[in-house]
Amino acid sequence: MSSSIKVFAPATVANVGPGFDILGLAMDNIGDQLELTLRDGTGIAIDMPGSDLPTDPKLNVAGVSVQGLLDQVGSNQGIHITIHKNVAPGSGLGSSASSAAGAVFGANQLLGSPLRKYDLIKFAMMGEAVASGKAHADNVAPSLLGGFTLVRNYYPLEVVNLSFPKDLVIVVIHPQIEVKTSDSKRILRKDIPLEVAIKQWGNVAGLVSGLASADYELIGKSLEDVIVEPVRSMLIPGFGELKTAALENGALGCSISGSGPSVFALCNDPEIAEKVAKSFKDEYTTLGIDHELYISNINEEGAKIISA
Amino acid sequence: MSSSIKVFAPATVANVGPGFDILGLAMDNIGDQLELTLRDGTGIAIDMPGSDLPTDPKLNVAGVSVQGLLDQVGSNQGIHITIHKNVAPGSGLGSSASSAAGAVFGANQLLGSPLRKYDLIKFAMMGEAVASGKAHADNVAPSLLGGFTLVRNYYPLEVVNLSFPKDLVIVVIHPQIEVKTSDSKRILRKDIPLEVAIKQWGNVAGLVSGLASADYELIGKSLEDVIVEPVRSMLIPGFGELKTAALENGALGCSISGSGPSVFALCNDPEIAEKVAKSFKDEYTTLGIDHELYISNINEEGAKIISA
Repeated sequence: MSSSIKVFAPATVANVGPGFDILGLAMDNIGDQLELTLRDGTGIAIDMPGSDLPTDPKLNVAGVSVQGLLDQVGSNQGIHITIHKNVAPGSGLGSSASSAAGAVFGANQLLGSPLRKYDLIKFAMMGEAVASGKAHADNVAPSLLGGFTLVRNYYPLEVVNLSFPKDLVIVVIHPQIEVKTSDSKRILRKDIPLEVAIKQWGNVAGLVSGLASADYELIGKSLEDVIVEPVRSMLIPGFGELKTAALENGALGCSISGSGPSVFALCNDPEIAEKVAKSFKDEYTTLGIDHELYISNINEEGAKIISA
Repeated sequence: MSSSIKVFAPATVANVGPGFDILGLAMDNIGDQLELTLRDGTGIAIDMPGSDLPTDPKLNVAGVSVQGLLDQVGSNQGIHITIHKNVAPGSGLGSSASSAAGAVFGANQLLGSPLRKYDLIKFAMMGEAVASGKAHADNVAPSLLGGFTLVRNYYPLEVVNLSFPKDLVIVVIHPQIEVKTSDSKRILRKDIPLEVAIKQWGNVAGLVSGLASADYELIGKSLEDVIVEPVRSMLIPGFGELKTAALENGALGCSISGSGPSVFALCNDPEIAEKVAKSFKDEYTTLGIDHELYISNINEEGAKIISA
């Protein structure tokens, strides 16, 4: 049992297409890195070099998550956590989830792995609740488990790892603008027409079936969100142009990552992904919007040890 | 090319669990039988021995469906259709769909198969529109194609054959009571809370994923309809008792077939299916309700030729 560990937990795309609040996927090449060290005495101490986020463990997503784990296993072990944020807060790429998932994963390792990865989801959700006010699981589940995940149920929590074709490539562009989560929540309607809901769950069924059978045409057609995207896309400059460019360049589909402002395109060919990325970049360069661009496979492993 | 053909088109369970308006499955051992014969001159003539349903081809689901097909292929061939109804009208087992699917399938065969089965769905839907006022596809699709089908989209029509484990067994009980489709439609709310819709599409995703991976536990948990069943089940006597009995006897799940009043249970073991069927029978015997009982595998072939 090591007394220090370095871990990685991936950034994630939640609300994938029609799968609002239920579908998420993990990215390969972007995520927070955390160092966790056992320390003498009790209490969690947190450093976040270069970040303005709160380091008080009661207000910090990693602190709250790890405290939940410690309480569960009945430990008062002191732990020092250094978080290197790579996933920008407010990006729509599961920034808080990446820190929460990495922290509980690392702490569980340091404690001798008393719990399975799956059982850590609920503690990372406690961290999410601190960050967003709601203990949602659609980012922390893929960040911990990797892959393409379904949160089928909350009470009790049930997360399913979906089958998906391994050659999928995600292109994500993160415009450097601020969209308040409270705004993106507020503009959603509380009630929706049954007819529209039927269309949405038809697409959910098509997407899950297409992923399971590697039917790219079905995946593409099903990556349509008729409820949330039409509303939230109004908060994202150039969304329509990005989507048109993605589809014209051969992406299977394109939608909002999480609650935005990041936009993702799903592709099944690295060359197409490169073209889509270039079209995204061109669009935001024309509009004069600073941005970060990512091209990634779907991460199959989730949170992992970098060194111990 | 034969001048006469005898065909079978299966009864179907639509609105499977959470898949309201999108998921349907075909049964193996119940369905309408139709004889279709080319006749001199033009026009469609229909006989339905022992049935009170209209035989005027403009008012009959089979007549309207076959006329749609004839119009599409530019034929004015006369066809005589004799329909032996085995699927009771108003049972919730796709009675009109069985006649419509059998009729277009048989007529297409007699015409030398100008169209594929898949392309016949839209003509059978025309028949459905005559019977129910709405050209829905969730019964005609499985009756024609067999298996477990998803109607992902209507405009344009897109039907997907889902993967499913072949050992599933369906138990259906049809209480001999009348529930008017207009009643079962009217009591549905036009708007639903977004939170409830999310729960429903989580279950849709779980069901499709469970079927694809033969995860029986996931199938069972996902066979939950939080929107339609709570309302429509009030029109079905003893529904709560049937469902409890089904689950206690080991069924994966239990819900309403179509818009009722038939109730189905999904099982993964023939012995469990027998037990569930007995418990259904006992329940309705106690309540003094006449009923028909069916135990069936999922039909993989759909509409088929019996003799030509």
